[in-house]
Amino acid sequence: DAMAKSKYEYVRTFEHDPVLLPNTWVVVRLDGRGFTKFTELHSFAKPNDACALRLMNRCAEQVLRDFGDVVLAYGQSDEYSFVLHRASTLYGRRLSKVITAICSTFTAHYAFQWPQVFPADRPLRAPATFDARAMCYPTTANLRDYLSWRQADCHINNLYNTCFWALVHGGATAQEAQARLTPTVSSQKHELLFQQFKTNYNDLPAQFRKGTVLARTSLDDRPDGGDDRRRKHIVVLHEDIIGDAFWSRYSDVLD
Amino acid sequence: DAMAKSKYEYVRTFEHDPVLLPNTWVVVRLDGRGFTKFTELHSFAKPNDACALRLMNRCAEQVLRDFGDVVLAYGQSDEYSFVLHRASTLYGRRLSKVITAICSTFTAHYAFQWPQVFPADRPLRAPATFDARAMCYPTTANLRDYLSWRQADCHINNLYNTCFWALVHGGATAQEAQARLTPTVSSQKHELLFQQFKTNYNDLPAQFRKGTVLARTSLDDRPDGGDDRRRKHIVVLHEDIIGDAFWSRYSDVLD
Amino acid sequence: DAMAKSKYEYVRTFEHDPVLLPNTWVVVRLDGRGFTKFTELHSFAKPNDACALRLMNRCAEQVLRDFGDVVLAYGQSDEYSFVLHRASTLYGRRLSKVITAICSTFTAHYAFQWPQVFPADRPLRAPATFDARAMCYPTTANLRDYLSWRQADCHINNLYNTCFWALVHGGATAQEAQARLTPTVSSQKHELLFQQFKTNYNDLPAQFRKGTVLARTSLDDRPDGGDDRRRKHIVVLHEDIIGDAFWSRYSDVLD
Amino acid sequence: DAMAKSKYEYVRTFEHDPVLLPNTWVVVRLDGRGFTKFTELHSFAKPNDACALRLMNRCAEQVLRDFGDVVLAYGQSDEYSFVLHRASTLYGRRLSKVITAICSTFTAHYAFQWPQVFPADRPLRAPATFDARAMCYPTTANLRDYLSWRQADCHINNLYNTCFWALVHGGATAQEAQARLTPTVSSQKHELLFQQFKTNYNDLPAQFRKGTVLARTSLDDRPDGGDDRRRKHIVVLHEDIIGDAFWSRYSDVLD
Repeated sequence: DAMAKSKYEYVRTFEHDPVLLPNTWVVVRLDGRGFTKFTELHSFAKPNDACALRLMNRCAEQVLRDFGDVVLAYGQSDEYSFVLHRASTLYGRRLSKVITAICSTFTAHYAFQWPQVFPADRPLRAPATFDARAMCYPTTANLRDYLSWRQADCHINNLYNTCFWALVHGGATAQEAQARLTPTVSSQKHELLFQQFKTNYNDLPAQFRKGTVLARTSLDDRPDGGDDRRRKHIVVLHEDIIGDAFWSRYSDVLD
Repeated sequence: DAMAKSKYEYVRTFEHDPVLLPNTWVVVRLDGRGFTKFTELHSFAKPNDACALRLMNRCAEQVLRDFGDVVLAYGQSDEYSFVLHRASTLYGRRLSKVITAICSTFTAHYAFQWPQVFPADRPLRAPATFDARAMCYPTTANLRDYLSWRQADCHINNLYNTCFWALVHGGATAQEAQARLTPTVSSQKHELLFQQFKTNYNDLPAQFRKGTVLARTSLDDRPDGGDDRRRKHIVVLHEDIIGDAFWSRYSDVLD
Repeated sequence: DAMAKSKYEYVRTFEHDPVLLPNTWVVVRLDGRGFTKFTELHSFAKPNDACALRLMNRCAEQVLRDFGDVVLAYGQSDEYSFVLHRASTLYGRRLSKVITAICSTFTAHYAFQWPQVFPADRPLRAPATFDARAMCYPTTANLRDYLSWRQADCHINNLYNTCFWALVHGGATAQEAQARLTPTVSSQKHELLFQQFKTNYNDLPAQFRKGTVLARTSLDDRPDGGDDRRRKHIVVLHEDIIGDAFWSRYSDVLD
Repeated sequence: DAMAKSKYEYVRTFEHDPVLLPNTWVVVRLDGRGFTKFTELHSFAKPNDACALRLMNRCAEQVLRDFGDVVLAYGQSDEYSFVLHRASTLYGRRLSKVITAICSTFTAHYAFQWPQVFPADRPLRAPATFDARAMCYPTTANLRDYLSWRQADCHINNLYNTCFWALVHGGATAQEAQARLTPTVSSQKHELLFQQFKTNYNDLPAQFRKGTVLARTSLDDRPDGGDDRRRKHIVVLHEDIIGDAFWSRYSDVLD
């Protein structure tokens, strides 16, 4: 039998196994698949559903717990980016293993933890699925630009969506809301929210405007005022990561 | 804001995006991560847990439903292989998208469908996760050799495990069982089962000995004797796929 | 010293080493770099320089002599395609080694054999250089389509160039010739050659119209009527390789 | 005809075209193929042939002239490494184009310039060929370690070869020389040269001991005392590149 098997073993040589360049920051980004339909099926609040965001963040935190080489994560909407330390040798840096293990862990916890986050009258009706990809960044400047890109994307989308859903909740059709917003620039959207809906955009929850950062740091940011500086723990933040302030404060994250 | 974002967009050029060679059979194989621990946590029956196998098969069937280009799947133990038709252009055959989308779909259904398959006194205590990889096979002969390799592996492992657990359930320690089996060849394992445990190995369920094949065919194998030949449907089989008989009978699977 | 060296050896892990999929036809195509300038510098006859083509063919033949796994080559203009047998394990099918070794061999012989092919009053003034790429074809049909593509390209370019240079040699400027040809289809170009230049395109040398095929065969095509069928030798042909006739006659080339 | 051609164009999608990660130092290393035989055929002086090294250096200089993005090259024995600036976008950083264009340029000049370097009684009898590979280095530290690795290799090999050929020229057989050297460490080889051959290893030409560096710099090292600081020119050096001194002095090379 083993002999019978051995004559087929040659098929292993066809395996496709690219390796992520050593000594680079590896970013694995997950994106929800078909989430427009998924959010409708589960009646997500618009433009932001607090339970859904909480669940995304819990899944991301689980990824950090399971993969010690992930030093930082950034999430917004139905996407999450995970940063592997440039020195990581996780799975020999094989692309397929790295992206599927992280994607599967996130996906599994999304279904598993749903009932812990959503109320009983909002059960999971169909499972959420994600795809994933990997990028290698040779320098910290490249990595920060990547994260800035995602946070700028969060800002643009959330400002638009906040206006869009304000108009729709105010009685406009989707077509009308879109027509109203298409010609506007950022300042005009702020103005529209303020004039028409008495909403100061900057007063909205930072989580909606900035997304969520999970970082592994020895800096103590935990609300209980604990003082465990012996080893890094995970902090959850909703801050600007485009400017330098965050990176000065949490300078040990990329160490 | 859009301008601010655009200056970061260059980071997209770092994306790592290998493509699976066109006109080849693509096999995506999923493997359970840390399943030794997972099976202990959930008290899987040994050597085979019927519920666990049923759940694996349901998840695989879901993959065939969601991905029309998957023409065949083969599963055994905690692994499943999915065959994409050589003409498939799923996601432009981009490796990352293909393996993560399939892996995530399988993973999500594993957690989601668990309560539908396992009794209430066997709840999911921690989510199962999987990794995935892809292989390209240029010829049908190569593809069949791959599938033969997996089924030969199933046979070797299941024969060993059947003996091992018979000895352990009969009072042996794991070490004793292993020592008893290490020097034996296949025929001696059959003999051991028959002499010592009155078990004819070939009478054990085919699912345990052969694994599970899901195939998309227009051939009618459904127990209700239906006659829907208008389009292919999915059949679930526990048959030898090493010899030619299966491939003669289900010749339309690889069409 | 060896110890000093060993601390740097880790840099080898950064090597980029993709492998050509096993059991596929590998085509390595070389293209002349900056040949417009090169042909002017060396006063190549237009549209076809017999010496230049002879040199290309000699270099290609040398590649077949040095690389036993190359079963066929097809050349036209300043390009040459080499077909490695699908069973080839040359350099472990590593892309970099395969394309650079073949490209370097061809390039080296181009400079080395130039004086053997060109008359003494046409010395090599600057060395010709080439780039190379590789493609994997899973089926013989794909491979034949590749070769058909190159021969169709040869035909289209040569018909155009034959007309273009006839007009230019007849006194037209390059702009006038181009303007005259742009609106014409194939049959009109044939007509133009016949009416204006009394040239029947199909009477031009087959080498110009069809390009050159080098094939390794046991079929005896050698002019000396030899009968060495014991082992394959290299034949040089200027035939249609789009239709089936060539492949029927030389059926052992791809064996 | 164009239509006939277009139906084959799909074969282009099979092209294998990996890209070198942006913003990394790219090293392309060429190695002589079968140089043991080549050096025998051309009666190279052992352990170092001054003409052969001069030709290697001229070919490398030509690569720097033709490829403006190559900022540094390091050569020893029959190998040469070329460093492309991390900002280079040469050929869109496509691996195949980059390595074959550089390899072909070097190879072509080796044959072309041979008669300019070797005396008339040492003609080129068969062309030299090279293979090439590429590595990406994310940091300057990694790049320097790569170059240190090659120079340490040069030192180890040259010390060994100097001893080996001293013994052989002194009457030993190759086997005897090898047996004499195998158990020795570096200091013992220095001692052997000094005691037995009155040779102080460190007095041998730096080119043999250190290899050759070609660097693009605005620093004026030209023997004519010229003062062209307007743009970078190429300097040829035989210096230690493992320590910091070289990199401090030629700090603009990697700018």
